[in-house]
Amino acid sequence: MINHTFSNDTIAAVATAPGTGAIAVIRLSGPEAISITNAVFAGKNLLNQASHTIHFGTIRDGEKVLDEVLVSLFVAPHSYTRENVVEVSCHGSDFIVQQLMQLFLKKGARLANAGEFTKRAFLNGQFDLAQAEAVADLIASDSALSHEVAIKQMRGGFSQEIKRLRAELVHFASMIELELDFGEEDVEFADRDQLRTLILNIQSIIRELLKSFELGNVIKNGVPTVIVGKPNAGKSTLLNKLLNEEKAIVSDVPGTTRDFIEDEINIGGITFRFIDTAGLRETTDKVEKIGVERTHQKLSQSSLIIYLFDITTSSPEEVQTEIEELNPKKLPLLAVANKIDEASAALLSAFGNMENLVQISAAEGANMEALKQALMDKVNLGKLNTQQQTIVTNLRHVDSLNKTYSALDDVLNGLALGMSGDLVAADIRRALYSLGEITGEITTDDLLDNIFTKFCIGK
Amino acid sequence: MINHTFSNDTIAAVATAPGTGAIAVIRLSGPEAISITNAVFAGKNLLNQASHTIHFGTIRDGEKVLDEVLVSLFVAPHSYTRENVVEVSCHGSDFIVQQLMQLFLKKGARLANAGEFTKRAFLNGQFDLAQAEAVADLIASDSALSHEVAIKQMRGGFSQEIKRLRAELVHFASMIELELDFGEEDVEFADRDQLRTLILNIQSIIRELLKSFELGNVIKNGVPTVIVGKPNAGKSTLLNKLLNEEKAIVSDVPGTTRDFIEDEINIGGITFRFIDTAGLRETTDKVEKIGVERTHQKLSQSSLIIYLFDITTSSPEEVQTEIEELNPKKLPLLAVANKIDEASAALLSAFGNMENLVQISAAEGANMEALKQALMDKVNLGKLNTQQQTIVTNLRHVDSLNKTYSALDDVLNGLALGMSGDLVAADIRRALYSLGEITGEITTDDLLDNIFTKFCIGK
Repeated sequence: MINHTFSNDTIAAVATAPGTGAIAVIRLSGPEAISITNAVFAGKNLLNQASHTIHFGTIRDGEKVLDEVLVSLFVAPHSYTRENVVEVSCHGSDFIVQQLMQLFLKKGARLANAGEFTKRAFLNGQFDLAQAEAVADLIASDSALSHEVAIKQMRGGFSQEIKRLRAELVHFASMIELELDFGEEDVEFADRDQLRTLILNIQSIIRELLKSFELGNVIKNGVPTVIVGKPNAGKSTLLNKLLNEEKAIVSDVPGTTRDFIEDEINIGGITFRFIDTAGLRETTDKVEKIGVERTHQKLSQSSLIIYLFDITTSSPEEVQTEIEELNPKKLPLLAVANKIDEASAALLSAFGNMENLVQISAAEGANMEALKQALMDKVNLGKLNTQQQTIVTNLRHVDSLNKTYSALDDVLNGLALGMSGDLVAADIRRALYSLGEITGEITTDDLLDNIFTKFCIGK
Repeated sequence: MINHTFSNDTIAAVATAPGTGAIAVIRLSGPEAISITNAVFAGKNLLNQASHTIHFGTIRDGEKVLDEVLVSLFVAPHSYTRENVVEVSCHGSDFIVQQLMQLFLKKGARLANAGEFTKRAFLNGQFDLAQAEAVADLIASDSALSHEVAIKQMRGGFSQEIKRLRAELVHFASMIELELDFGEEDVEFADRDQLRTLILNIQSIIRELLKSFELGNVIKNGVPTVIVGKPNAGKSTLLNKLLNEEKAIVSDVPGTTRDFIEDEINIGGITFRFIDTAGLRETTDKVEKIGVERTHQKLSQSSLIIYLFDITTSSPEEVQTEIEELNPKKLPLLAVANKIDEASAALLSAFGNMENLVQISAAEGANMEALKQALMDKVNLGKLNTQQQTIVTNLRHVDSLNKTYSALDDVLNGLALGMSGDLVAADIRRALYSLGEITGEITTDDLLDNIFTKFCIGK
């Protein structure tokens, strides 16, 4: 375990998003949080107030009133960071926020680094490292599933699973180390068969967790989806249709404006990041060939391909050939026949037996639900039970789980070779170290910096 | 006085700026604010808690945890709106904010209209109308002076002045109306000479207030400043120099990112809105003539002209001629000689006697302070004492003051003509009505709607 330098200074940062709102919140944390605020606050004496109380007054720089504010007090250890914390709710103008921040810095607070509040919360034992990381994931969450997974991780779901595994291993490590104390006496406190069974069990759980990352990554980062098709197949009509349905939901709550990225579409809680392409044409023209090559590049970066075609100008054989040409790597692909409202019954039935085909009319909005279901099926969400299953979403955790798995392999090998207790114990310790990195029982300053600099300032 | 429909429903809105921050705040106000929150809150029973207390817990939609939050309680009448108010501080993701808002709306809250919290605060007597309007000005304030004037108005400075004038008039109106009760008896309770003196005094104060609007408008809306000059005079170097100095101040507080509008520059607390022009050339070319015409259009929309020229390629006579050509309307104009670092002493002294001239080097940053001082002098800030003087910044108030002034003229005329008490009293009442509109003692629903729809939602 590495000793961390605990901070004894008081940090301050704007905690709300920049820009104009009705209110903004500035947060201070540290031993002087309350006294610094009190020094510029005209109202009650904040030094005498109970934790979790709110006080109205003005913030003054000398005689000059900067704003009327509400001050919320959290007295250590009853706060997010377990230090003294003050939240100052002021009028939501960037100008005022800046004036107040400058005043707090002048009075002895230091501008907080990114994630420093949460880092202090972790260092002071408020939660473990995987939970702290989930706070950032939660703030970044932009879909129902990424939100659900982040909430679960923040509330300790993943950490409990890791800690349980770790506790069982610790037991065996202690037993084997106890044997070492008895030196030459050849005692065996740790039952080798039980240990082997335990390790195989832990490895099986780790394999499940690692497998969940495929899905966890999709949930957290979305599915890069390339949409290809000939010109006039109806790509933009389809994208607009999908976008508009989502926009309709968003606009149910005016005032919660989102930074809308035109080609990210949320379906069934999963973000599909649609990558538009120049389209595919059979061509001998050099310039167009470059366009087609770029489309193939984009295809290779995607996890899912939608091949959209105009059913009124296509035949099943043509479509089949085109799909084979554009998808040599056999990525998940969904064929979508558009303009069924203009197609004859004979044509529709000619395509009736084609696999992986959804028939829609983007213009009429026909069969859009079937299309969405097919998209969700393609990312294997059918199998998903986010309520029950623990899902790994963090590459750092994947790395630590892999290291743990490999150390456990070494333990198994050692047992098979009848290696001495001290060597086996060393491999178990290595597995424990890697597991401990996930929850932060084992940390280094570099690791912490790496994690918390990815947070926003004010959290 | 018009009766307003008081709202008995509970409103909800996001109170912080949209976008990602560490935290966001949702605000509810109305009789059910606490009970609606309590219905979705897992933690203490919020119905039993004291005002101005903060409670940690989770917001749940059924079994599903939407977020861990802090709930701040303000029990009526001890709140901004004087109704029950709840502020829910959640993780600052738009997705979460939207989820929580939808839940509150589902549970019986209604989405607040723009400014509805402040409107309720006004209707419930928390402050008067001029103070309510200052809340919006305060949020919009983006310079030291606009902030100072808004704070002063919000804290009642302007209102007190209006109310004092009104109280004196009310006294005379009552006296004159009392005379009417005595019918034919020809008594005079209201001393006509005193009344005339009072009205002249009030009119003189109103004239001062109206005069202050010229400055108030500059403070609130900035000074539209056109910067003209030949190509290569150094316009962009100068703008960048002015901008960079401001940026340096802003970046002292990282994390308080501002929506930076490239050509708004804050000098001495006043916002100068720089309007760039195509430049001026002597030309016979038709296309270029259009460009010069556009420059003249922009000149006519500005309050201040900066004429920038390269001192190394100009003579005082040329500069004088050009200035006369471009400023036929004699708007405030400041001539700025650039590139003094490249000019000979003889050249500098040739320009030495020119009026309204500042000599700078934008590239070297020489004499920038003198330039700023000259800009501030041009908007007459030298005369300003914002601490002492009441400054009108609101066009609505100007309108009401003008109406008051005109009604008082009618009173004076009536007195001069020896008109009967009931006619004089009617004119005084008209003056009182217009004054009362400013502070909201007299309001109509239309007037209120007009004012509060300009607020942001959540305030």
